Amino acid sequence: MTEEILSNVPFCCFKRGEKMKQVAIVLFDNFETLDVFGPVELLGRLPEAYSLEYYSMKGGMVTSGQGTKIVTEPFCEITSKGILLIPGGQGTRSLVDDSEFIEKLGKLAYKAEYIFTVCTGAALLAKTGRLNGKEATSNKRAFQWVQSINEQVHWVKKARWVIDKNIYSSSGVSAGMDMTLGFLCDVHGEETVKEVCQGVEYTWNRDKENDPFAR
Amino acid sequence: MTEEILSNVPFCCFKRGEKMKQVAIVLFDNFETLDVFGPVELLGRLPEAYSLEYYSMKGGMVTSGQGTKIVTEPFCEITSKGILLIPGGQGTRSLVDDSEFIEKLGKLAYKAEYIFTVCTGAALLAKTGRLNGKEATSNKRAFQWVQSINEQVHWVKKARWVIDKNIYSSSGVSAGMDMTLGFLCDVHGEETVKEVCQGVEYTWNRDKENDPFAR
Repeated sequence: MTEEILSNVPFCCFKRGEKMKQVAIVLFDNFETLDVFGPVELLGRLPEAYSLEYYSMKGGMVTSGQGTKIVTEPFCEITSKGILLIPGGQGTRSLVDDSEFIEKLGKLAYKAEYIFTVCTGAALLAKTGRLNGKEATSNKRAFQWVQSINEQVHWVKKARWVIDKNIYSSSGVSAGMDMTLGFLCDVHGEETVKEVCQGVEYTWNRDKENDPFAR
Repeated sequence: MTEEILSNVPFCCFKRGEKMKQVAIVLFDNFETLDVFGPVELLGRLPEAYSLEYYSMKGGMVTSGQGTKIVTEPFCEITSKGILLIPGGQGTRSLVDDSEFIEKLGKLAYKAEYIFTVCTGAALLAKTGRLNGKEATSNKRAFQWVQSINEQVHWVKKARWVIDKNIYSSSGVSAGMDMTLGFLCDVHGEETVKEVCQGVEYTWNRDKENDPFAR
């Protein structure tokens, strides 16, 4: 029994001397639940490497598109560089026109060491200008809308996820999980990803160009 | 643009006259995030069929194993029959010994129309006695521990998910998504599942006996 319990505790892939990375998770009303909690589950498997923190523009309670009420801290509390995770969801449709939100998100995006967007989260980042001249992808069903937000982005229509330097963008919803595993593979290597996948019993789509949902 | 927006709105598979089902999601400190939000994302694609509600024994704020702070209602507010969703996670290790919790969970489990367990959530349900003489499965890494909780359950070692009458139990973490799609297929049919999978860009492992993580 003790062995079973221990083998369920996430193993440590963290090298001594490495600094823990803050993952600043950007929440807003009507965000898409799995866009957030897919990546969160996987990054959370390396608790010595990633600190998961939940933010919204003004802090307080945010409600997901699936009715989950989540307590957040305000953007101004994001202190360290690290990973900025931007989910999608129906809430993005009005947020792209919220100039105060977009301005604050832009400032965070220019400071972040890595940026992840999932699904229509790419529309929010595109609106800040941070994706200008860069490659990115998004949800297939909302693709035309996302493209219309900023045509200076090189939108990739067929990709499970896209990497442009330090910006990782994924296709719709569950693709955020494959992208996160891709990131973990890039940073920590194959063995770490294999271990994480065993822990959550997930079969990774490891080829970022293998997009079963491209139209 | 309008077409794109509309095509992103979950379609309706709901027949007139059918009653909406309450999904009572059982949360506790240190529950595993994806055990909950995988199924939630998928059931949430049919908002006219399923009402997602978040509960904990005494209500108030619950913190997931990944540090998400979620606002819940108390168990006593669960009024209708429906689906009872029981996730796993490190929090189950102590909860199996919390007799007040187990007694209340048992009462809910005997009332529910359907019960879903994900991962080590099966240990909690097993402890109530509701699984006695029934088939169920659980996380592969914690299997021995889960078995030890109640040996009157027919534990199935190789299964993505198991159905015994109205009780659906899944293997570890991400298997909860495949199980939920299996349930949606059983209740609403293939076309509904195809549509849900397109919406979240998820490749369903549709064979409940196809368990890539069995030991």
